[in-house]
Amino acid sequence: MRYTSTTTTADGITERDFDHDGVPGVLWTPPGEITGLVLSAHGGGQHRRAPGITARARHCATAGLAVVTLDAPGHGDRPRTPDHDRYATEIRARMSAGRDAGAVVAEYNALQTSRAVPEWRSVLDTLTGTLDVGDRIGFWGVSLGSAVGIPLVAAEPRVSAAVFGLVGATDALAHAAASITVPVRFLLQWHDRLIPRDAGLALFDAFASPRKSLHANPGGHGDVPAHEHDSAVRFLAG
Amino acid sequence: MRYTSTTTTADGITERDFDHDGVPGVLWTPPGEITGLVLSAHGGGQHRRAPGITARARHCATAGLAVVTLDAPGHGDRPRTPDHDRYATEIRARMSAGRDAGAVVAEYNALQTSRAVPEWRSVLDTLTGTLDVGDRIGFWGVSLGSAVGIPLVAAEPRVSAAVFGLVGATDALAHAAASITVPVRFLLQWHDRLIPRDAGLALFDAFASPRKSLHANPGGHGDVPAHEHDSAVRFLAG
Repeated sequence: MRYTSTTTTADGITERDFDHDGVPGVLWTPPGEITGLVLSAHGGGQHRRAPGITARARHCATAGLAVVTLDAPGHGDRPRTPDHDRYATEIRARMSAGRDAGAVVAEYNALQTSRAVPEWRSVLDTLTGTLDVGDRIGFWGVSLGSAVGIPLVAAEPRVSAAVFGLVGATDALAHAAASITVPVRFLLQWHDRLIPRDAGLALFDAFASPRKSLHANPGGHGDVPAHEHDSAVRFLAG
Repeated sequence: MRYTSTTTTADGITERDFDHDGVPGVLWTPPGEITGLVLSAHGGGQHRRAPGITARARHCATAGLAVVTLDAPGHGDRPRTPDHDRYATEIRARMSAGRDAGAVVAEYNALQTSRAVPEWRSVLDTLTGTLDVGDRIGFWGVSLGSAVGIPLVAAEPRVSAAVFGLVGATDALAHAAASITVPVRFLLQWHDRLIPRDAGLALFDAFASPRKSLHANPGGHGDVPAHEHDSAVRFLAG
């Protein structure tokens, strides 16, 4: 991991841009002691410094948590690959024709997962080896962030709590969810036109976690209310 | 309203038992300024000093909220009435025979509502006339507390936020919910054998509130986790 710039803002939060084996990322650390680390994964079409990602990182840092985020494969400053472009074109074409894009989205998510899960685990190895991140490692990612994050948390025993949501059950995600036992917060938007309500409820149902909470709110895919973000920070800060 | 006893505990919270036109109740007030008032309605078969009611009252009072609770008709120290006994017998008989008790429960809830709603409104008149309760009036009641509380909040413009749950859609409740526009927190237990999941989700769907959140957790009717109570206090304290 190579740090490329460091900025400390007036509130004492430090932001470090880095490159980790060709994956660009950002690490935010709080002014005082780090009480935990949050892996923060962005949604489809977004990037490591999308406004929502930056806002929740600063919010977490204020609560004592370090936050790390990465550009997902094919996103942000990372090169588009031919298969990324092919999937994106196909998904857009199906959606604009009013056809079901679910199977193509699931294939695309599987491709993303196969690339992003090892990247996240490698970043976690480096951070826990070089930084005292406390004993709470959380994950926070919805939509594409959950499509990658659910398999990641299923595979990664160091993560002890996770915020997921805005994604529906597929065979692969339900299978991964069934092996997750850490506390889970699952966000669902009640009028989400991208995620059928029943598919979202079925995925919540699939988590094996004895402590899991579904939080559903009115509005579409992009309308998660601010109070849920506040509440998710409290959940991750423990 | 006639106060019959007053106790102040070591933490500065004052508990006053009262009788209001024959309805026994308790008023808890915080040590300092009252920032709001919570109407706290107990569940079926419980009473005004059930452990859960007392615990959430003290929790609210610690957050600056006054709390008032009443024995529901036919509950606690109030006389059983012949129709109360008839419904209770019929509901028990149907449930132990594995028959659907839904229609009888709905009739019983309608009877409770017709009695309890005017009682709550009268208590609210008295308290707001004699006490500076701040400008936030909340309602908190699940199960039977919601069966009464949803029509109460629909009828009562002074209530500005409500915690409901553990109840399913009936025509009457869905109709009342459709006229509620204040912020609502709706609690649902994912493995509740008394409330079919779809009926609970349908009732959440029915609220007209632009700000409403469904919080669902694993477990049965009586298993609402402690963190939901903590979160509900924050929601009501605003």
